[in-house]
Amino acid sequence: MASAPEQFEGFMIHSSEKWSDFTKGKFTPKIFEDYDVDIENECCGVCGSDVHTITGGWGDLAVSPICVGHEIIGKVLRVGPKVKGFKPGDRVGVGAQVQSCMKCPQCKSDNENYCPHQFGNGYRADLADTYGAPYNVGGADSGKPMKDRDGNQIWSQGGYSSHSRVHEQFVFPIPDNIPSYEAGPMMCAGLTTYSPLRRAGTEPGKKVAIVGIGGLGHFALLWAKGLGAEVTALSHTAGKKEEALKLGADHFVFTKDKDWAKPLAFTFDFILNCADMTNEFDLKTYMSTLAVNGTFHNVGLPDKPLPEMMAQDFAPNGSSIGGSHIGSKKEALEMLKLASEKGLHPMIEQIDISEAGCKKAVEKLKINDVRYRITLVGFDKAFHKK
Amino acid sequence: MASAPEQFEGFMIHSSEKWSDFTKGKFTPKIFEDYDVDIENECCGVCGSDVHTITGGWGDLAVSPICVGHEIIGKVLRVGPKVKGFKPGDRVGVGAQVQSCMKCPQCKSDNENYCPHQFGNGYRADLADTYGAPYNVGGADSGKPMKDRDGNQIWSQGGYSSHSRVHEQFVFPIPDNIPSYEAGPMMCAGLTTYSPLRRAGTEPGKKVAIVGIGGLGHFALLWAKGLGAEVTALSHTAGKKEEALKLGADHFVFTKDKDWAKPLAFTFDFILNCADMTNEFDLKTYMSTLAVNGTFHNVGLPDKPLPEMMAQDFAPNGSSIGGSHIGSKKEALEMLKLASEKGLHPMIEQIDISEAGCKKAVEKLKINDVRYRITLVGFDKAFHKK
Repeated sequence: MASAPEQFEGFMIHSSEKWSDFTKGKFTPKIFEDYDVDIENECCGVCGSDVHTITGGWGDLAVSPICVGHEIIGKVLRVGPKVKGFKPGDRVGVGAQVQSCMKCPQCKSDNENYCPHQFGNGYRADLADTYGAPYNVGGADSGKPMKDRDGNQIWSQGGYSSHSRVHEQFVFPIPDNIPSYEAGPMMCAGLTTYSPLRRAGTEPGKKVAIVGIGGLGHFALLWAKGLGAEVTALSHTAGKKEEALKLGADHFVFTKDKDWAKPLAFTFDFILNCADMTNEFDLKTYMSTLAVNGTFHNVGLPDKPLPEMMAQDFAPNGSSIGGSHIGSKKEALEMLKLASEKGLHPMIEQIDISEAGCKKAVEKLKINDVRYRITLVGFDKAFHKK
Repeated sequence: MASAPEQFEGFMIHSSEKWSDFTKGKFTPKIFEDYDVDIENECCGVCGSDVHTITGGWGDLAVSPICVGHEIIGKVLRVGPKVKGFKPGDRVGVGAQVQSCMKCPQCKSDNENYCPHQFGNGYRADLADTYGAPYNVGGADSGKPMKDRDGNQIWSQGGYSSHSRVHEQFVFPIPDNIPSYEAGPMMCAGLTTYSPLRRAGTEPGKKVAIVGIGGLGHFALLWAKGLGAEVTALSHTAGKKEEALKLGADHFVFTKDKDWAKPLAFTFDFILNCADMTNEFDLKTYMSTLAVNGTFHNVGLPDKPLPEMMAQDFAPNGSSIGGSHIGSKKEALEMLKLASEKGLHPMIEQIDISEAGCKKAVEKLKINDVRYRITLVGFDKAFHKK
């Protein structure tokens, strides 16, 4: 088999004060273990989590320098002796999670995205576990920190980089008819929206609203329509109407219109909120559009708390507010099958990876100047000298 | 048929400053219409809503004087010409709702407890619609205010009273083997806890926690166990252990113990929160005991907002927070059948109704000195001269 280099290369951030000043550098990957898959990275989506992380919005950098990126597509170079699902040459993806204990009730019930044992050794780690989490020898909960040759803890590092080394549980095969630059953002934004829609029973006959037509929300429109629901896009940007309808919305509602919610009272079985300014929402107005026992589900994660709620506020329609964390491998495979079979295509801007390219990408995302997702491409030129 | 008097008698409150000073007085009931059932009241449970209402905790009195009480049991005196389900002499109950439009999608899908059309004419009305809501001629949403002989709006008045006049949709037949003083509190506290447990799919194999073992919570223990779940009582009163186990809890957890929640991580499919001091809870600790995609459901209604939440707080287990409003007639009938067939008995204190008896009852409830519910009895002596 072709082998990955001893050290990987990536575009890295040294401090959240200089959150868009990327420098190309090397890092030590995790030690190659029996279930690991080495991947030559081909492209990587740029996620809001990357920006929250490097700007310090979710707290101090877990490790510095850090290489972010968790929407990775690449080609398998070699596989560990116990890997069953992959072989060199396969095109694969990696999302926002690269570790779990594989043993707890959550892991054993296709809920490995809710495994609580992934953050070992007392280190803080972000939800975006693919970068900034400490590795243990032999698995997430072994209790034995994985050290490099100098005795330093090895941390997970993300996909703005030359290669990835990941346990096969967190590697997904990519169907041939999905282009890599489109598949990349499916690994996090796609799965993060697919999982809650699926678990809410999205299917023909259901009415679903998608709030916030951005990186997450535009995927949510694709999936909700693909799963057969009647789909309404709720947006405070009137100019997104045409694209929302093209992506799969049956209806577009401009939420700056006065009384926009009144005709929608008791309408939606499920609202998937992809906006990350929910702290500024009139949440009760959104809740009033839920059908009896409907749910307002958050996947956008503001840096600030949700608006204040009374227990009484759920009473008029027996509603609830919830959230979720990415999705399971089972759901990732379903999502990719749906995209492949129904020909669902996200709208992706491509930017060549480089120090300047990474800077441009995260700065555009920070000001929401993206329609609707960026994928960093051109990895062959930047890393692989091809 | 025997007929009800032109005016009904009740123990009434004139202002929330003197919230426990009841005086016996008369009030004009709604005009008798085709679907109405006249009931000679036999007893009435005392609900937290009564206290929230008369103390002004949920806002100013809707009407003064007000007669509260919405856990009414009595005997049918006469029925309107279109009533199909009842005949004179039947023992029946009335809960917290006496109106809905009967036409909207909610009413037509056994969700009449979520009918939004019940509060007409621009009047404010409490959720506790059985008292303090304005009547319209011909139904909740007719738009024609129902007036008495002097031209004043007629308001609904509750069950600390001699008689009730209620649309048959909101009258429930009481199985013979349930004593009236036990059936009374089932009409609101019982149904309010039964409905969310049922809708959450409570059944054998499910793990359910009940928080707050009081008037609502002690019913929740009965129902959750009766529906077959494995039931845990969560309480900050260690002294309630024995009774909680007797009512149906399989386990009792004292929530003032340090780290009480740690061994319960990822345990409960459903938590029914019956406490009304949730504003003082460490909500995230409770949420951590939910299984993946579990729900923390509020039926206790504090006067203050819920603790602040981040969207991120739902992520570790994909959980949600919800609430509900009483239950439907369909669920009331199911609940009564369950109680009857399984011989489920709440723990009820009986107090004879009078000015002093009403005062004692609401004052005991205000300081949570009730195990676990009070029913006002002795109506024959107070009202019916028997």
